[in-house]
Amino acid sequence: MSVAKVGEFGLIARITTRLPVGPTVLLGPGDDAAVVTAADGRVVASTDVLVEGRHFRRDWCTAQDVGHRAAAANLADIAAMGAVPTALLVALCVPADLEALWAEGLADGLAAEAGLVGASVVGGDMSGSPTLTISVTALGDLQGRAPVVRTGARPGDVVAMSGRTGYAAAGYTVLSRGFRTPKLLVDAYRRPEVPYAAGPEAATLGATAMVDVSDGLLSDLGHIAAGSGVGADVRRDAFDIPRQMRDAAHALGVDPYTWVLAGGEDHALVATFPVDTALPEGWRVVGEVREGAGVTVDGRAYKGPTGWRHF
Amino acid sequence: MSVAKVGEFGLIARITTRLPVGPTVLLGPGDDAAVVTAADGRVVASTDVLVEGRHFRRDWCTAQDVGHRAAAANLADIAAMGAVPTALLVALCVPADLEALWAEGLADGLAAEAGLVGASVVGGDMSGSPTLTISVTALGDLQGRAPVVRTGARPGDVVAMSGRTGYAAAGYTVLSRGFRTPKLLVDAYRRPEVPYAAGPEAATLGATAMVDVSDGLLSDLGHIAAGSGVGADVRRDAFDIPRQMRDAAHALGVDPYTWVLAGGEDHALVATFPVDTALPEGWRVVGEVREGAGVTVDGRAYKGPTGWRHF
Repeated sequence: MSVAKVGEFGLIARITTRLPVGPTVLLGPGDDAAVVTAADGRVVASTDVLVEGRHFRRDWCTAQDVGHRAAAANLADIAAMGAVPTALLVALCVPADLEALWAEGLADGLAAEAGLVGASVVGGDMSGSPTLTISVTALGDLQGRAPVVRTGARPGDVVAMSGRTGYAAAGYTVLSRGFRTPKLLVDAYRRPEVPYAAGPEAATLGATAMVDVSDGLLSDLGHIAAGSGVGADVRRDAFDIPRQMRDAAHALGVDPYTWVLAGGEDHALVATFPVDTALPEGWRVVGEVREGAGVTVDGRAYKGPTGWRHF
Repeated sequence: MSVAKVGEFGLIARITTRLPVGPTVLLGPGDDAAVVTAADGRVVASTDVLVEGRHFRRDWCTAQDVGHRAAAANLADIAAMGAVPTALLVALCVPADLEALWAEGLADGLAAEAGLVGASVVGGDMSGSPTLTISVTALGDLQGRAPVVRTGARPGDVVAMSGRTGYAAAGYTVLSRGFRTPKLLVDAYRRPEVPYAAGPEAATLGATAMVDVSDGLLSDLGHIAAGSGVGADVRRDAFDIPRQMRDAAHALGVDPYTWVLAGGEDHALVATFPVDTALPEGWRVVGEVREGAGVTVDGRAYKGPTGWRHF
């Protein structure tokens, strides 16, 4: 049944009954606004929007997948501040002929991804629109830590990464060429695996700067470099290219390092740390902060694309 | 110059330099997420989305007007919980040929409306889209008060209103018939005048339930009735119809009470109070809570439209 037939209030009712309410929720969906815990007296907040045809395609991803991706993009921003996500709010714009089941699947995906970190979908809005659009706001709790911003990297710091890059971009390329495998890459595009816990961990370890890789490693590390007034160098040999990625790159005539260095949407966390920091498992040194400006690869300017263009 | 020419990062830079940073902002735009004060350990959060052609028209409203309206719709939701707004986050989806000046004007309008209550625009996201879409999330601080929800109205309570209804709906009707006056009504549609301070005031006075009138008085009061398991009756003679509205209604062949009782988007606050509550200036009794279900007008079922259909 289409969303137009179910109606706005009907659809909201169908969706809100599917949303589990976690311990951070003092008042959930159904009122003018939600009330969420913000235990340390501050709240971290970030918004990301996904537009059909630009950020997702319904023939490439299930509704649940899109929910996971939309939530992950936002939750990763919260983690990249060193915070723990507490809540999501979702503005959903839907064509009148969209199946209500699709909207319900989206809500399931959003709630499931949020549930991975103990966060809940607490509210939102819905409207008709010719363009299927999902705007998500994530809230988070710093639990007493200072936020890790983009401006604190210093020459001599190491650049370290938790999570992976290139998988989602490879999956995107595979899908855009009409293939549905390798599963490793396509699944990575559909449902990113974000190292959420590494964000607060990095803050506790004394990270001097941190971002999540949403646009591409070189592009997002470039934000740290620009924000901190430093340069950064990334070592190509710090990255393992898994066999499936190497094979897919070979078959498609692509340099796999383009995926790894410039592909976004895996939402790895990249942080800079004082050089003597003992990095726990999950963090890997991939480069270093230098005097200067811009991001180089193996000491040289990078010629390829560095990230994703949004319009 | 079009947004496509200015580019995403260029446009974000242009916009963020225009945004004043208020006292609630610990970390403003430019990082993965913003950090906002949440002094009482809870945060109130609400999201509303505006879609071009459905919620606004660029030939009826300036970019600044749309910013005011988008902010007002969200800030009113925060006020309707009894909270004081602290921050807005904005997801903006723009056609590639949109003038960058329009986006800047929108940001000015959002910031100006937020500034009325001491809140700031702290972050957001931007994407290309065929459909101009503005999704706003507002955050707020309860300052130690209990949130005023929709479920607490009790038979015998009075229904009181702060702010006005029907003005924006009348302005909308005037504009949709091709007129640009009366200014009182058209301006009310373009930039709602929301009684923000009345929200926390009602909470302090002991309001048993509260909503903002975004869809229409009868429709939104219906949410309180349904949520509280009660009925409500509204008295037509509690509403003053100003001369300009009466004249416009006469000229257009409309019953002005349709605007007043069923018109949305002025974002009046409607609350229920124990009958012996001494209501300060700005609050007016417009009806009463009764046993039963549904909302009546002068004791009878209302035959006209009660609110706005979203798709």
